Amino acid sequence: MGDLGQESNPSFVLRAVKDVKLEDIPKPTITDPYDVIVHIGQTGICGSDVHYWQRGRIGDFILESPIVLGHESAGTVVDIGSKVKNLKVGDRVAIEPGVPCRHCDYCRSGSYNLCPDTVFAATPPHNGTLSKFYKTAADYCYPLADHLTLEDGALCEPVAVAVQVCKVGNVRPGQTVVVFGCGPIGLLVQCVAKAYAAKKVIGIDMSASRMELAKSVLKCADETFAPPRMPKADGEAYDADKESEWSAKVAAQIKDAFNLGEGPDVVIDATGAQSCIQTGVNLCKKGGTYVQAGMGKENIIFPITTACIRDLTIRGSIRYTAGVYSAAVDLVASGKVDPKVLITHRYSFEKAEEAFETVRKGGEHVLKVIIEGVKDN
Amino acid sequence: MGDLGQESNPSFVLRAVKDVKLEDIPKPTITDPYDVIVHIGQTGICGSDVHYWQRGRIGDFILESPIVLGHESAGTVVDIGSKVKNLKVGDRVAIEPGVPCRHCDYCRSGSYNLCPDTVFAATPPHNGTLSKFYKTAADYCYPLADHLTLEDGALCEPVAVAVQVCKVGNVRPGQTVVVFGCGPIGLLVQCVAKAYAAKKVIGIDMSASRMELAKSVLKCADETFAPPRMPKADGEAYDADKESEWSAKVAAQIKDAFNLGEGPDVVIDATGAQSCIQTGVNLCKKGGTYVQAGMGKENIIFPITTACIRDLTIRGSIRYTAGVYSAAVDLVASGKVDPKVLITHRYSFEKAEEAFETVRKGGEHVLKVIIEGVKDN
Amino acid sequence: MGDLGQESNPSFVLRAVKDVKLEDIPKPTITDPYDVIVHIGQTGICGSDVHYWQRGRIGDFILESPIVLGHESAGTVVDIGSKVKNLKVGDRVAIEPGVPCRHCDYCRSGSYNLCPDTVFAATPPHNGTLSKFYKTAADYCYPLADHLTLEDGALCEPVAVAVQVCKVGNVRPGQTVVVFGCGPIGLLVQCVAKAYAAKKVIGIDMSASRMELAKSVLKCADETFAPPRMPKADGEAYDADKESEWSAKVAAQIKDAFNLGEGPDVVIDATGAQSCIQTGVNLCKKGGTYVQAGMGKENIIFPITTACIRDLTIRGSIRYTAGVYSAAVDLVASGKVDPKVLITHRYSFEKAEEAFETVRKGGEHVLKVIIEGVKDN
Amino acid sequence: MGDLGQESNPSFVLRAVKDVKLEDIPKPTITDPYDVIVHIGQTGICGSDVHYWQRGRIGDFILESPIVLGHESAGTVVDIGSKVKNLKVGDRVAIEPGVPCRHCDYCRSGSYNLCPDTVFAATPPHNGTLSKFYKTAADYCYPLADHLTLEDGALCEPVAVAVQVCKVGNVRPGQTVVVFGCGPIGLLVQCVAKAYAAKKVIGIDMSASRMELAKSVLKCADETFAPPRMPKADGEAYDADKESEWSAKVAAQIKDAFNLGEGPDVVIDATGAQSCIQTGVNLCKKGGTYVQAGMGKENIIFPITTACIRDLTIRGSIRYTAGVYSAAVDLVASGKVDPKVLITHRYSFEKAEEAFETVRKGGEHVLKVIIEGVKDN
Repeated sequence: MGDLGQESNPSFVLRAVKDVKLEDIPKPTITDPYDVIVHIGQTGICGSDVHYWQRGRIGDFILESPIVLGHESAGTVVDIGSKVKNLKVGDRVAIEPGVPCRHCDYCRSGSYNLCPDTVFAATPPHNGTLSKFYKTAADYCYPLADHLTLEDGALCEPVAVAVQVCKVGNVRPGQTVVVFGCGPIGLLVQCVAKAYAAKKVIGIDMSASRMELAKSVLKCADETFAPPRMPKADGEAYDADKESEWSAKVAAQIKDAFNLGEGPDVVIDATGAQSCIQTGVNLCKKGGTYVQAGMGKENIIFPITTACIRDLTIRGSIRYTAGVYSAAVDLVASGKVDPKVLITHRYSFEKAEEAFETVRKGGEHVLKVIIEGVKDN
Repeated sequence: MGDLGQESNPSFVLRAVKDVKLEDIPKPTITDPYDVIVHIGQTGICGSDVHYWQRGRIGDFILESPIVLGHESAGTVVDIGSKVKNLKVGDRVAIEPGVPCRHCDYCRSGSYNLCPDTVFAATPPHNGTLSKFYKTAADYCYPLADHLTLEDGALCEPVAVAVQVCKVGNVRPGQTVVVFGCGPIGLLVQCVAKAYAAKKVIGIDMSASRMELAKSVLKCADETFAPPRMPKADGEAYDADKESEWSAKVAAQIKDAFNLGEGPDVVIDATGAQSCIQTGVNLCKKGGTYVQAGMGKENIIFPITTACIRDLTIRGSIRYTAGVYSAAVDLVASGKVDPKVLITHRYSFEKAEEAFETVRKGGEHVLKVIIEGVKDN
Repeated sequence: MGDLGQESNPSFVLRAVKDVKLEDIPKPTITDPYDVIVHIGQTGICGSDVHYWQRGRIGDFILESPIVLGHESAGTVVDIGSKVKNLKVGDRVAIEPGVPCRHCDYCRSGSYNLCPDTVFAATPPHNGTLSKFYKTAADYCYPLADHLTLEDGALCEPVAVAVQVCKVGNVRPGQTVVVFGCGPIGLLVQCVAKAYAAKKVIGIDMSASRMELAKSVLKCADETFAPPRMPKADGEAYDADKESEWSAKVAAQIKDAFNLGEGPDVVIDATGAQSCIQTGVNLCKKGGTYVQAGMGKENIIFPITTACIRDLTIRGSIRYTAGVYSAAVDLVASGKVDPKVLITHRYSFEKAEEAFETVRKGGEHVLKVIIEGVKDN
Repeated sequence: MGDLGQESNPSFVLRAVKDVKLEDIPKPTITDPYDVIVHIGQTGICGSDVHYWQRGRIGDFILESPIVLGHESAGTVVDIGSKVKNLKVGDRVAIEPGVPCRHCDYCRSGSYNLCPDTVFAATPPHNGTLSKFYKTAADYCYPLADHLTLEDGALCEPVAVAVQVCKVGNVRPGQTVVVFGCGPIGLLVQCVAKAYAAKKVIGIDMSASRMELAKSVLKCADETFAPPRMPKADGEAYDADKESEWSAKVAAQIKDAFNLGEGPDVVIDATGAQSCIQTGVNLCKKGGTYVQAGMGKENIIFPITTACIRDLTIRGSIRYTAGVYSAAVDLVASGKVDPKVLITHRYSFEKAEEAFETVRKGGEHVLKVIIEGVKDN
C-alpha cells in the first residue's frame, strides 16, 4: 500500500455480501472549504454494519459496489478546509456519521435525519469510517474534552441514538420510563433517561447479566424485570389471540411488580420483538408515549384499538435531529452517561473481520465491540 | 306514564342485549348546585349506541342493568342549580355527553377524556340522553346561537369528535390531509380540516355517492379516491405479505394521482380497516402524523418498521379534551362546518327503535339518523 | 452602461446615507452549483429599505460601503447551477431574501432566521435585489403558479413576515386575535390570521381609511377600533403612570366594545408604539400570547407585573423560519391572502428614487409601493 | 379559647393592616365529601404574607375583613370526607394552597393557576393555613414519604413555585440556565434546574454569602456572579439610556466570564429589579427563553427591540399548573432538591408575629422562616 509520497489509506472494505477485505483506497483531499479530514482513532461496530456484511441491504439501501464499513468513529483532525471555524488541526473529535444535503425542506427545518440525500457513513453507496483517513463536514464533528478518550468519542454515536429516542419520547424529569431491551441501545436509552432526571427507569430483558449491568454497574435502571415466556405445548400452532392476551397479562404483571399505577409515562422498545411491542403498548399509561427504537420484522400484530382508546402517542426514532449529537457528547463529557462500560471486546484494525465476526455471533456477553484505527508510522 | 302532578320522563331504555323499550323513568331533580336539567330536543344515533344494543358491551364497558340510550343531544334548559352562571332557564344548548370527575390527575391536567370516572351518557352503567329530561353539569352544556337549530346542536357531538381528531393530528393551515373513510366521522374530519385551512383535503372511500357528497356537496374534500381492491383468486388463502405489498402499492398510487410528493402531512383513518391502516402508514410523509380515529379489530397487522424509519407520529383519538366541544359549537355556528347536510333520516321519539334499526342496517345512503325529543303537552 | 457583449446590470445603489443612484454593476455569474440567477421583475419597498437610505443603519447593521437596495422581489430564472433540482430557466419565482449559512446551530435546527451569517438582501454589506439580475440560492426561490403575477410574487415577502408573526403567535383556528396597526404588515397579519381560521380578528388603528380597508375591502378584520388619545393639558409633562393607567383603560374599552370576555387569545402589535404595547399587554387574555411584530424605540415602559401575573407568553418575530415563505406563497396562490390590494403606487425602475421618496413621506394613503424591474431590450 | 367539648382552633389572624393577633376561630367541619381536615404541623413564611400584613393588598386582592395568614404548610390529616380516595386519617401531607373552581375554562384545560375563583390560602378574602386545623380539598394534599418531615412538606410550596418557573421556562437537560437572585425562590429555581439536568446553572446576586450557599452548600449553581453596580456621580440624575447601556455591558461581562457564547438558553429573573430584567434580556441567547419569576414594580423600562430581534420567548410564572406540586414533592422526596437547607429561623406558633417581623426586617442571612404548628394537648 502507498508509495512515492502519496499517503496510503488502509480501509476495511465490504466488497460484496460476506466478502470483506482490508485494502488501500485513495486518501481523501479537501475540496469543499467546509470539510475536514479526520485520522480515525476508534470505531464501534453496530448491528447495521453486520447486517450489510451478511445481507447486503437494509430497506431500500442495497450494496451494489464496494463500500468501506463503519460509522461509529472518533479521531483526530489532520486537515481543514478554508472556511472551517469550529475546528483546528489536532482537535480530537466525535464524528456524526450522516451529513445531510442542507437544501431540502427536511434539512432546512431541522429534521435533517429525514433528508433523502444524506451522505451516511457505510450506508450504500457511501463509504464508512473504517479507513485511516475520513473526510467529512466540519460541523458534523464535535470536539472532545481533554479527559475523554477516542473510545468515548466513538461511543457518542450510540449515545446519540439514545438521546434521539428520549427526545422523540419526550422523556422529562420526574417521569417513569420502561425500556424493553438491555442491549447497547436499550442500556444507553436507560442511561439517558436517568441522566434526564427520570424518576424511575425500569429495564426489561431476558438476560440476568445484562439486567445486572443495568441495575448495579451502569445504575441506569432502578428496577429490572424478566418477562415470563408464553407457555406453549409441544406442536401447538402459533395463536395470535393467545399472544395478545399473554402480552396484556405481562403488562399487568409489570405494573403490579413496581406499583406503576396507571402505567409508565413513557415506554421504549429497543428490541423490535412483537411480544415486547404488544406488552409495551398495553403497559403504557393513558395519554403516554410509546417509542419504537428497535427494528425487527417489517410487520407485526399490533394492538391498534388499545393504542387508540388510551390516547397514546406512538413515535418512531431514526438517526438524530439537530442538537442531538452535541447533547450526546455533552452527556459523555459530564460523566452522566459512561458508555465505555459497555465495551466487551477490542480489536486492532488488522483484526477488523474478527471483530465483525464477534458481533455476528453475538450472545449475552457481547455488547460493544471496538476496532482501533490505523496508527501513524 | 305520569300522574298526580309528578312529571313523566319518557325514555328509550336498553334493558338487555337486543331488548329496547320506551318507558317512563323518574324525572331528575337538581341536587348538585352546578347541574342543570335539559329538555332534550334532538338526538343523533352513533354506532356505539347500536353496538351496545346489539352486543351489550364495548371494551370494558358491559351492560349489566338497563340504561337509557343516546348521547348526541341538544335541548332546552328547564332548571338550573344555584351556582350555575353560564346558563339560564330557556337557553338552548348542545350537551357534551361526558362529565368527568374533576379530581383525578387527568381531569386536573386538561386530559379529562381519559378520566376513568367520567359519567358518559349511554356508557354502562350511566343513562344516556334519550329521555324527555336529562340532568348534567352546566359547564358541559354550550349555548346555541339563535340561528342554530337543536338538530345542529345535537350534531355538534360528531363535529367535536372530528375536532379532537384534528387536534391530536395537529392539523395546521397549509397542510395536506388524507382521510380514509367518508362516513359521518370521516366526512366531518374532512370538514374540520378544511375549516382549519388545510391546503388540500383528500377523502378515500369505496362509495361513489359518499365521495360525491364530500367533493360537491360538503365541499370538504378537494379530491377523492376509491382504492382498488386487492385481487384475489378463488379459494386463495389470505396472505399477509401480499396485503402488505398491495397496501404500499395503493399508497404509491394515491401519491401519484394527486402529486403528493413526499406524501400528506397528516393521514387520518376513520375506518379501522387493516388495509386502510396499512395504506395510510405507507402514504404518510416522513415526519408526518397518522391518527387512528376509527376502531375496528382489536389487533391488526401493522407496518411498524415503516412507521419507525419514517419518523411518524401515530396518535389515537378518544372523546374530547378541553376546549374541543366549544370549538365544535363555534364551527357549526360560523357555518364553516354544516353537519346537518349529513342527516339522511329523521324519526319521532316514539319510533326510536325504528331509527336504531335503520342505523343497524346501514348502507351507503344512511349517514346521520336523528330522533326528535318528547314534546311538551 | 454595458458594452462589448458583456451584459449590463442596472441597479439602484445606496452609495451613502441619503445618496442613491442608478448605476451599472457586474452581472452575476454562477459559481455555486446550487445558485440561480433571477431577472428581477417587481420589487416592493419596505420601511427598512428607507431606513438604510435615510439613516445608514439598523441595529448592528451599518452601511460602510455602497449596496444595492431592495429585498421584496420576484422575477424570472435566467440561469441555474448544475445541482439545482427545484427550478428551471424560465420559472417565475418569489425570492426569500435571506440565505443563511447552513452550517451553524441555528441553521441546522431550522431557526435559520437567527443565523448570524445570513446573506440578507440590502442588509449591509450585502447587495439587495433592485438590480436587473440577482443571484441567490435556488432553494430560497419559490415557483409561482401561472395565475400569479410577479407583483404577487414580490408581495409574498411581507406576507411571509405576517405568516412568521402568526407562527410565533401560535394563531390557531377558533381564536380571537387583536392586531394593533393597519399598515401593510398589520393588515397582512390580519389577513393571515383570518386565513388561518381565527374566529374573530380585530384591527386597531387611528386611520379610518385603513380600518375601512381592513374591514370592507380585505375583509380581514371582523371589527376595527380607533383607540382614544390620552387627553393632555397644554404644557402638561409626560407622566408614565398616567399613560399606564390610560392604556389599561383603553384595553378595558376594547374588551367591552367587542364582548371579549377574558380578552383575546392573541395580541399582535405591529406598531412598535409604547401606548399600543401597554394596551396590548393589558388586553391579552390570561395565558394568552402577545407578539411584538413592529419595532419602534429601543426601550419602552412595559407592564411587566401584569405580563407575569397573567401568565402571558411574549414573543418577538424576526424574518422567517423554515416553511414560512412557502406557506406565504401558498396563501397568495390560493387567493386566501391577496396582498396586491395593498399596492397604492407603482414606479418604473428609472423612477426608483421617486418611489422611495413616496414611502419616506408616507401618510395614510401610502401602503405598498412597487418598482418594476429593468426590462429586456 | 375553646370549651364545652368544642375543639378550639387557634389561628394567626391579620385583622387589619399591621394588626395581627392570635385568636381562636371555629374549627372547620367537613361538608364537601371531597374535603379533608389537616392538623397543620409546619408553615413557612412567604414575602406575600408579609406584604398583606404591611400593606393590606397585592394587586386586586385587598384585605377588607380579617383573614388567617400563611399558605406554605404541611400537616396531618385528621378527618376526611366520604368520597376521598387518595388519603386516610393520619397521613402526613403537603398542602397545595390554592383550590380552583374546577368548572371554568382555565380549570378544565389544566391552567388552573389562572382560575379567577380559586380559594387561595391567605389571599383575601380567604383564610390561610396558620391555624391549628385547616380544611381543604383532598386532591390538593400530597402524602409525604416516611423519611420526610413536615418542614420538608411545608417547603414543597416554594419548591413548587420553582418547578413552575422551570416548566414555563421549558428548562431541559443539557441547557445553560442563568438565574438572577439567590433568595429562596432564586435558589430553589437553581436547584430545580440542576435537578432537571441543566448542563450549567449560574446564580447572580450581590450577596457573597448567598452565592456561597448556592455554589458550595446547595451545589445548585455551577458558577455565581456579582454584577457590578452602575457608577453614579453625586447628585447625578437617573438616566434611562445610561442604565440600558450598562445592562447590556453587564450582560456581555457575564457571557465572557463563563464562555457562554451566544448566551444561556434560559434566563430567569427572580428579583423583579429593572436592572436585572434589562441585563437578563440582553444576556439571553437568540431564540431563548426569559422567565419573569420575581415581581417588583408594576412597570419597568424594557428593551423591547432587543427582545423582538432576538426572537426571545418571554414568560411570566404564576402559582402552579397541573402536575407541578406533585413534581415538587417528588423532587424533595428523592433528595434531588433539599429545601430545608434554606431554613434560617424557626419559631413556635405563639411567636408567629416575631417570625413575621424577622422576615419583614430581612437581610442577607434571612432565608426561610418557619413557624411550628399548634401542638395537640
